[in-house]
Amino acid sequence: MPELRKDPIHGRWVIISTERGRRPSDFVVEQHKPAGGFCPLCEGNEDKTPPEVLAFRGNGTPPNSPGWSLRVVPNKFPALRIEGELNREGEGIYDKMNGIGAHEVLVETPLHQETLATLPPKAVENVLWAYRERIMDLQRDPRLRYVLVFKNHGVAAGASLEHSHSQLIALPIVPRRVSEEIEGSRNYFQYKERCVFCDIIRQEIRQKARVISENKSFVSIAAFASRFPFETWVLPKKHHSHFEHMEPFEYEQAAQILSDTLRRMNQVLNNPPYNYIIHTSSFSDTEESYYHWHFEIMPKLTKVAGFEWGTGFYINPTPPEEAAGYLREAK
Amino acid sequence: MPELRKDPIHGRWVIISTERGRRPSDFVVEQHKPAGGFCPLCEGNEDKTPPEVLAFRGNGTPPNSPGWSLRVVPNKFPALRIEGELNREGEGIYDKMNGIGAHEVLVETPLHQETLATLPPKAVENVLWAYRERIMDLQRDPRLRYVLVFKNHGVAAGASLEHSHSQLIALPIVPRRVSEEIEGSRNYFQYKERCVFCDIIRQEIRQKARVISENKSFVSIAAFASRFPFETWVLPKKHHSHFEHMEPFEYEQAAQILSDTLRRMNQVLNNPPYNYIIHTSSFSDTEESYYHWHFEIMPKLTKVAGFEWGTGFYINPTPPEEAAGYLREAK
Repeated sequence: MPELRKDPIHGRWVIISTERGRRPSDFVVEQHKPAGGFCPLCEGNEDKTPPEVLAFRGNGTPPNSPGWSLRVVPNKFPALRIEGELNREGEGIYDKMNGIGAHEVLVETPLHQETLATLPPKAVENVLWAYRERIMDLQRDPRLRYVLVFKNHGVAAGASLEHSHSQLIALPIVPRRVSEEIEGSRNYFQYKERCVFCDIIRQEIRQKARVISENKSFVSIAAFASRFPFETWVLPKKHHSHFEHMEPFEYEQAAQILSDTLRRMNQVLNNPPYNYIIHTSSFSDTEESYYHWHFEIMPKLTKVAGFEWGTGFYINPTPPEEAAGYLREAK
Repeated sequence: MPELRKDPIHGRWVIISTERGRRPSDFVVEQHKPAGGFCPLCEGNEDKTPPEVLAFRGNGTPPNSPGWSLRVVPNKFPALRIEGELNREGEGIYDKMNGIGAHEVLVETPLHQETLATLPPKAVENVLWAYRERIMDLQRDPRLRYVLVFKNHGVAAGASLEHSHSQLIALPIVPRRVSEEIEGSRNYFQYKERCVFCDIIRQEIRQKARVISENKSFVSIAAFASRFPFETWVLPKKHHSHFEHMEPFEYEQAAQILSDTLRRMNQVLNNPPYNYIIHTSSFSDTEESYYHWHFEIMPKLTKVAGFEWGTGFYINPTPPEEAAGYLREAK
């Protein structure tokens, strides 16, 4: 059973993932892992993953067989386990609990060579509908408080499988980075009676210097205080605190701009490794006027090193205005 | 002039480092950078760095010439600039100031093939004395509030030069990760009237499960809530809030245990890439009963990916008790 442990100074939680137990020699092996070879996420290899919890598939095709366009399966090597109780306890000054949660893999396409940037926008829209469906299902588990949707693309961004996929991790705790962001937004709202993200969107659209692209419902910008070169945020123009509470046409618009933004990055940065995440409200929050869901896309072009670990500051060598200029000019 | 920018939601600061301005093509080039070749930090190449601000050198050898055992020079491509005023200002809802600060490189040895793990403990002690001297000098600048001492070892840990070196960055702001740690320690002290680090040291020495090594004045442990496999903290047993306020014999003891710990890591993990940092009190804090300076050593064995960026949670596949066991058994 994995364990959740809390740092007594910072209050930072970590997952000690015994399922993936690593001895010193395992880290050396990892560096020499060959590329290519057998892929458990390709069509036809459905028996190499745990049984699907969701699939979009052709009429009449049975579960866990070919004929799908998108599949969601539990992670075969989960960071957290879905069965059991939290069993919160202390160990002297330390706090810990069982690593309860869900860890799912969303296979975005049956075809190994496709990526989110090359798939048609309709297929990207299906990915967003699947995120929504899984979020709404996981919310029913009273032990869970938050689900993070994220994507690691490319080895340098931490992807252990090449086949295009996203992941969902549902947690028994609202994670620190999310609660800080919600808290910061709440403070801003209390002071100004306005959503900080709505203010950012208004200022960015007026200034134009950091806007990458825009459609009826969304805007994609290089964040003013970007941590990483070409860090890009995609925000709904209409205020929505929850990703899963949008109107149907807004998912289509979200897919269009996400697809467009990733294509621009591909062209300018030559298929870069990247991470993206969705930040949305926690399970217990109702529709809130102060928080605003969004995507954060972080190309992995520089290394995070001692200075960043020690301070929480980031050194970004590419001014966001220049990054936006390059991405805006890409076709 | 580099710029410090503040994220309006998180309150997180970033350095937009125009001195290192990076266009898209520069990131591609970086990946193909050849290893080896000319080294500006080797003895005899003193004219390839800015003039030294500190050196330990043989009697009679002039500055910026051979004959040194340790040199500190300004970084040739600094993240922050020492000249100028902060000029704090707003840009709509955003906040920014000039990127004022110091960025120095401490060359730990004249010999290219040595590392902190292979140098004699006496040479490591000189590195610590040099940290102390630079911290005390930088504290005199009223624009600065904190100095982070850190080390990046190996390409995967972000080192751009192979030659063994540390860095110091002095900042006009107490960085978030430090102020959170100081704040957490202060809260613990207010509740318990004890230093949380002193409590950690007592519990770890009693439990033994996570102790790696120990000498008269220091203990080296695998942190209970380690973010990374083999993350190791080195702490002075006697309460000291400031690195620079120790007794002379304590620097000798610190060098002995740091050297010992790095040698153990080298043996168990085969010369791993790593980062280390020193966390100490800010310039304005006097001797405090609630904060306790320490080293954090983080081998770079896994990749930080979407989940970590999105949550601030870390997934650590090696239980700290196992990491401590391997390191304890190493010679």
